[in-house]
Amino acid sequence: MFTPVYLDWNATTPLEPAVREAMLAWLGERHGNASSRHEYGRQARAAIDEARARVAAAVGAHATEVVFTSGGSEANNLFIKGAAACLKPGLLGISAIEHPCVREPARQLRRRGWAVHEIAVDEAGRIDRDDWLALLERRPALLSVMLANNETGVLQDIEVLALEAQRAGAWLHTDAVQALGKVGVNFRSSGVHAMTLSGHKIGGPLGVGALVVDKRIEIEPLIAGGGQERGLRSGTENVAAIVAFGLACELASARVEDESRRLAKLRALLETGLRDLDVVVFSERAERLPNTSYFALEGLDGETLVARLDRAGFACASGSACSSAHPEPSPTLLAMGVTPEVARGALRVSLGRGTTENDINRFVAAYRQLAGELKNLTAMAVAVR
Amino acid sequence: MFTPVYLDWNATTPLEPAVREAMLAWLGERHGNASSRHEYGRQARAAIDEARARVAAAVGAHATEVVFTSGGSEANNLFIKGAAACLKPGLLGISAIEHPCVREPARQLRRRGWAVHEIAVDEAGRIDRDDWLALLERRPALLSVMLANNETGVLQDIEVLALEAQRAGAWLHTDAVQALGKVGVNFRSSGVHAMTLSGHKIGGPLGVGALVVDKRIEIEPLIAGGGQERGLRSGTENVAAIVAFGLACELASARVEDESRRLAKLRALLETGLRDLDVVVFSERAERLPNTSYFALEGLDGETLVARLDRAGFACASGSACSSAHPEPSPTLLAMGVTPEVARGALRVSLGRGTTENDINRFVAAYRQLAGELKNLTAMAVAVR
Repeated sequence: MFTPVYLDWNATTPLEPAVREAMLAWLGERHGNASSRHEYGRQARAAIDEARARVAAAVGAHATEVVFTSGGSEANNLFIKGAAACLKPGLLGISAIEHPCVREPARQLRRRGWAVHEIAVDEAGRIDRDDWLALLERRPALLSVMLANNETGVLQDIEVLALEAQRAGAWLHTDAVQALGKVGVNFRSSGVHAMTLSGHKIGGPLGVGALVVDKRIEIEPLIAGGGQERGLRSGTENVAAIVAFGLACELASARVEDESRRLAKLRALLETGLRDLDVVVFSERAERLPNTSYFALEGLDGETLVARLDRAGFACASGSACSSAHPEPSPTLLAMGVTPEVARGALRVSLGRGTTENDINRFVAAYRQLAGELKNLTAMAVAVR
Repeated sequence: MFTPVYLDWNATTPLEPAVREAMLAWLGERHGNASSRHEYGRQARAAIDEARARVAAAVGAHATEVVFTSGGSEANNLFIKGAAACLKPGLLGISAIEHPCVREPARQLRRRGWAVHEIAVDEAGRIDRDDWLALLERRPALLSVMLANNETGVLQDIEVLALEAQRAGAWLHTDAVQALGKVGVNFRSSGVHAMTLSGHKIGGPLGVGALVVDKRIEIEPLIAGGGQERGLRSGTENVAAIVAFGLACELASARVEDESRRLAKLRALLETGLRDLDVVVFSERAERLPNTSYFALEGLDGETLVARLDRAGFACASGSACSSAHPEPSPTLLAMGVTPEVARGALRVSLGRGTTENDINRFVAAYRQLAGELKNLTAMAVAVR
């Protein structure tokens, strides 16, 4: 089997061997509906309880604050729409660089009478202080600002935002899907009221995530029914995935310091290797996730680069995977004031557990060669015209 | 490991070995976000496409009509709330014996201005003709009637209902979660406009299901975001679970005739073995799923029976697993006119692929012994009083 170098860890990660083992036990002889009142059901319930405690411990929350969902998108929708459904239509503030699974539910709320303000970001992709403070004066009911951006990796000062949101009487939610496992994430000490987590970005399986949520917030379930997850998320619990997610959280949080140092070094190697090419590295001067490098070389097209790198044996992204189907320039970059021409050339390289120095060196060589070829082609095309 | 005889296949099923194998490939070296535009992503996309075609073929639908979800509860919520969100508040009709994941979203719609009518059932648990026809005269916009009930196993005349719904200008949805793999299920020939399927009831994994839906029906997504599943269900696709679900559907539909004959024989053995005990077998005279036996012995308590059988090494249910946490008598039985006293004694035994004649004989012996003991205890308690 042809295995290209995987440099798209922000899109999804392979399952870690230990996590896989934990999962397999629940895909084999063990099975059971956790609501059943017999041995099979009790074992399933106990496994879920243990996983819930692990997730809670990994992010500094109480187990009863963890609501398992089918993933990050569901958790973001659950907070935005579920909290809004329990309030009179009011003002919702989201940052201008949120993932579509925050932006789209916000758009749905607009149709239900809510006002939605998109908080501006500066050229590094950080929340614009003036716009944020002006928004708070308007007394928003709900706020959602992602902890780390999926494209640039930019980190927000979430503690400060949480404190200010608290003072303004708003509930602040943060999408921590990309931050988890790459930087320290702590629900309690960050001061946020709700936080989204996902399994498949941290070496856990697809199909599982969580909304960690302050119990003072009333939430209407998106998926109503049997009353699982304290009535906030019905449906037979996905035991195997929940067990695996619990372990993945524990492992990711245990090694986060070492791993983030290691990834930061690899990224420095990458960015140093491209320096003389005149690449623009987005959010370079802001605090970023240590594993993420997002850059562009004017005149090159990101989609073409991804396709050519793919053929050369490197898997990376031209923007967030979820929007790869749309060839418009990244809304995140546009919000940062990047011109459409530069934004179109953006390439995202995201590193992870399996990334080695050799991978980076090979990638740098491949990118340099490709950039040279494509630049020449462009120059020739211009000359011919 | 202590492995009790599993007689609770309507609650959940163990993963079939072949399905497990198919799943493992995507929990090992293969991984990828299906939206990514590189080799890993393309392989994931191709695997999902193949699974979608398998699900469609298994239930007589077109692949483009299949929307993958995280399970049956989500699919039921997606239809009820998603279709309602695109309509002016009107009339929704659901049967009085629906699963909570249809009943609860219907309740949520009531708070949004919808009128909800619960269609009466007869003493066998079948839709009451008069009530149904009277409802259609009131021009409901949406209808949901389950194909097979999770507790009694009762099957509805879905083709007739679909034809009548169509004439009345209503969209009819059916929850086919329990029917799939136990009787023939065909989306096209049944005439329904939407159908819910689930993986873990047919030897597939937990955490996956589908809404099969006529493309004329406008649906607002519950989970909005990246635009996966034709915009009807966002979130990174759970490739391993979807692949496994596709295979489970194919296998279940291929063997449904043989398996249903085999299970019907085993159930006859069970019910014959209890006949002289004066048990009431619910829906005995109606067309039922071949694997489901739901019965009561007056004076015995279902919860106690489940607990005692559990200790004796048999896993069964006192009602639907999802409501086992609530000790009230089954709403399904009450809707059928069963008295609360009799309903409280109800025990559900549901058979599946792994059930053998020996399991049934052992269960019958255990139940008879237990019934004798408990009856004596009750008699003594009455005498003492």
